[in-house]
Amino acid sequence: MTNEQLIREAAAKLGKKVYQGPGQKIPTFRRDLQKESCKVVSLEDAIRKSGLKDGMTISFHHHFRGGDKIVNMVVDKIAEMGIKGLTLAASSLSDVHAPLVGHIKNGVISKITTSGVRGELAEQISRGLMDEPVIFRSHGTRGAAVASGELHIDVAFLGAPSCDPLGNACGYSRSENAKSICGSLGYALPDARYADKVVILTDDLVPYPNTPNSISEHDVDYVVVVDSVGDSSKISSGAIRDSKNPRDILLARLAAKAIINSGYFKDGFSIQTGTGGAALAAVKFIRESMIEKGIKASYALGGITAHMVRLHEEGLIERLIDVQSFDKVAAESVKNDPAHKEVASYEYASGMEPGSAVHYLDIVILSALEVDVDFNANVLVGSDGIIRGAIGGHPDTAADSALSIVVCPLLRGRIPCIVDHVTTLITPGASVDVVITEYGTVVNPRRPEIAERLKAAGMKLVDMQYLRDCARKIIGEPAPIPFGDKVVGVVLGRDGSVQDVIRNVLK
Amino acid sequence: MTNEQLIREAAAKLGKKVYQGPGQKIPTFRRDLQKESCKVVSLEDAIRKSGLKDGMTISFHHHFRGGDKIVNMVVDKIAEMGIKGLTLAASSLSDVHAPLVGHIKNGVISKITTSGVRGELAEQISRGLMDEPVIFRSHGTRGAAVASGELHIDVAFLGAPSCDPLGNACGYSRSENAKSICGSLGYALPDARYADKVVILTDDLVPYPNTPNSISEHDVDYVVVVDSVGDSSKISSGAIRDSKNPRDILLARLAAKAIINSGYFKDGFSIQTGTGGAALAAVKFIRESMIEKGIKASYALGGITAHMVRLHEEGLIERLIDVQSFDKVAAESVKNDPAHKEVASYEYASGMEPGSAVHYLDIVILSALEVDVDFNANVLVGSDGIIRGAIGGHPDTAADSALSIVVCPLLRGRIPCIVDHVTTLITPGASVDVVITEYGTVVNPRRPEIAERLKAAGMKLVDMQYLRDCARKIIGEPAPIPFGDKVVGVVLGRDGSVQDVIRNVLK
Repeated sequence: MTNEQLIREAAAKLGKKVYQGPGQKIPTFRRDLQKESCKVVSLEDAIRKSGLKDGMTISFHHHFRGGDKIVNMVVDKIAEMGIKGLTLAASSLSDVHAPLVGHIKNGVISKITTSGVRGELAEQISRGLMDEPVIFRSHGTRGAAVASGELHIDVAFLGAPSCDPLGNACGYSRSENAKSICGSLGYALPDARYADKVVILTDDLVPYPNTPNSISEHDVDYVVVVDSVGDSSKISSGAIRDSKNPRDILLARLAAKAIINSGYFKDGFSIQTGTGGAALAAVKFIRESMIEKGIKASYALGGITAHMVRLHEEGLIERLIDVQSFDKVAAESVKNDPAHKEVASYEYASGMEPGSAVHYLDIVILSALEVDVDFNANVLVGSDGIIRGAIGGHPDTAADSALSIVVCPLLRGRIPCIVDHVTTLITPGASVDVVITEYGTVVNPRRPEIAERLKAAGMKLVDMQYLRDCARKIIGEPAPIPFGDKVVGVVLGRDGSVQDVIRNVLK
Repeated sequence: MTNEQLIREAAAKLGKKVYQGPGQKIPTFRRDLQKESCKVVSLEDAIRKSGLKDGMTISFHHHFRGGDKIVNMVVDKIAEMGIKGLTLAASSLSDVHAPLVGHIKNGVISKITTSGVRGELAEQISRGLMDEPVIFRSHGTRGAAVASGELHIDVAFLGAPSCDPLGNACGYSRSENAKSICGSLGYALPDARYADKVVILTDDLVPYPNTPNSISEHDVDYVVVVDSVGDSSKISSGAIRDSKNPRDILLARLAAKAIINSGYFKDGFSIQTGTGGAALAAVKFIRESMIEKGIKASYALGGITAHMVRLHEEGLIERLIDVQSFDKVAAESVKNDPAHKEVASYEYASGMEPGSAVHYLDIVILSALEVDVDFNANVLVGSDGIIRGAIGGHPDTAADSALSIVVCPLLRGRIPCIVDHVTTLITPGASVDVVITEYGTVVNPRRPEIAERLKAAGMKLVDMQYLRDCARKIIGEPAPIPFGDKVVGVVLGRDGSVQDVIRNVLK
């Protein structure tokens, strides 16, 4: 038999074609082609080529928080192109996304799923703007849902402070033309990997190869150059700010004292702090005790802040695991320090994934809008029934940590934070171990060993009923929220079940 | 309506369950649980839990080259467990895998797909050991096939010099107990991402979190602790060695001269060198010219060697892109230097992926067993018909580079390397631009501009017929290989078609 015959036979048997000869070489010096990649297109072309159609799901990350410029830009363009009925699957939304109200009214956006929403958009949703309820998921639950296909994304639009013409992108830039920085792209990584089509929007198109990179060209279909992907000065906006409030400082001291005496403050511990002012301030007090006692942490997790970076650089925390950089110092650190590791939201906090980082988390400090007498916490809906927050990693870290501490003032102005029943159930009470208020600390009766230790350390322990009564004494019984019967939001639990609903507010 | 009613309604509408309350907290100090992860199991349990069954496909990487200890260990255990009829999808195989001959005879392994094979196993395959032909793919083609699902892997068994109990793994270790190092895990990354089940075998189980890591817990199902994953002293064995052969040095000088005068040796160029002694030596001469002319490279690609690391550390090469570390210096560099980036084989060289690194590659130096008068190259099958090599990235880099140089002696002992027809077609002649021998340099007529430049630089240009005649004059017409009609190997092209077949050798 001739070779040609054997090749034909082999191809037939394997179900493959017979080789027809090579393509043409493109013998051009590649550096000259930097901007001529077939992936680099206009936003309109990216949307068109992505195949986006009525009824599909688009996604966004929220690493620029209040400084985000991508969501409005992309949805404006989609609206202009006449595409309607989309599901907007953002990792979170904030005040800056008020223009979406118009795009909900004009039918461009018909469904939303997010971790949270604030400002005008949140208020209108709370009053019944949308026909379909907003689906709220924690960060870990969103990551798990994207990975499992439960939340299928047709086209992801991901802002990146740098990208090369082939699609290698990251949350910072190493070029002289850098315009923005957000650090970790942890909430974008699931979308980059699992969305059918991925569009990177960047304000710094850098030469190939943009290494080290977070998102690989392997996952990227189109690259769009824009004037600005976000205002980096706002990545520490919203819930994240350094507090000088004396009450926050007091709460921070108490939280640090609880941690230090909890039994989990020992060499190799791991810790996450949320975004509240008291949680952030607590890090400073923990640092002092670490130095004093010669204790080092194995890792700090989560939203990473300048405080955590400082401890890491001092050698007090071995590694940082970062799903979201909470300030510019953290963003620069994830850019430059290999021990500061960017992780995807499912690597951070998926409840479906036995290896997610929360499974090895010892201590978490969280804040809350409300905690009720059963230790249930609410971080999403205000006591007036208006959505004004985000689930974030709250239920994920509370459930999987060895010690979860919720720091919460008794009152915020005339609003009680310790209540009979949370307005919306976000973190189940079984996950909340310690509640710290300026009127005393409460340990969940499920954790008697911790109560013993804190009592031995001289902390003032009270019970939830006492705190609820204190709040009532000061401001009386709050009037019931004028809720209607329309469901404007659905809160999914970590197992993907419906954990609570949010009703519309009537006035 | 009550909240409970609304929750039930919302769940029904969304097709989700109603929340039934939280699970139990596990309030244990996590550092104490280091080895108690549910993922850490014995090899036998990993195989059983993976669901491996007769007829499935298992995969391996070859980063330890001749020092690999995983393939034999795993296949022995599978044989012991009585599983049969498997397809072995290795990224490559070498001399050390001779024991597979027994596992082919006893029916455990019935098909093989690989980039190459050497030694006893290769010889037996060449003589007709297997009922089914071995499927040979280039590294880029394998990566593309794994990503597209054309090559579906049921269970990947991936050796890693470090791994934590949750599955975060890499090709080096930062612990004091490090036993092995291989650097980049580029050929394991496609398997880690796309295989149905992933088992990491490690000889250094390190505390969580093993960051920075190459393979994420997200992709890992089981972790198996073994005595040794590989002998690191052998990662530069096989085709990779520093040559002191005067002919290699001459060929290296000529290759460097061709590059320097090719028109592609200018600031920002990119380069890859293969594993031949001459190709490696050429880097030294190119370095001298870069310093002299003040030219810097944007990146070096591929198998990264100590030579390339040196140039990078001297500032002559901005970045390293590494699918496989070719020696310990390179392996240490990828561990410690963020500008030395590990990439998956599809990011390196997929022909199906417009963003793979070869698309921006300017210059590649390759070796060959044979080149024919049509510039076709063979790197897989010896002139005696016995398989004795690996496709590697040869056709990928040759096709996509702006300038491909094949360095090849006229003869190896009594074997001519410049022939009328290559024994097996691996890299089509249209991809080969320059062939360098100690008897003169040949430029492919498709690239007249390069011939002009090399002539102007005073290089001795000849044609392929002249070289073929020189070889013949010295050793005469070689006897035809006694091939039979049985197909023992099928070579797939970069487009997935059947490019050539390898026949059995009769004596």
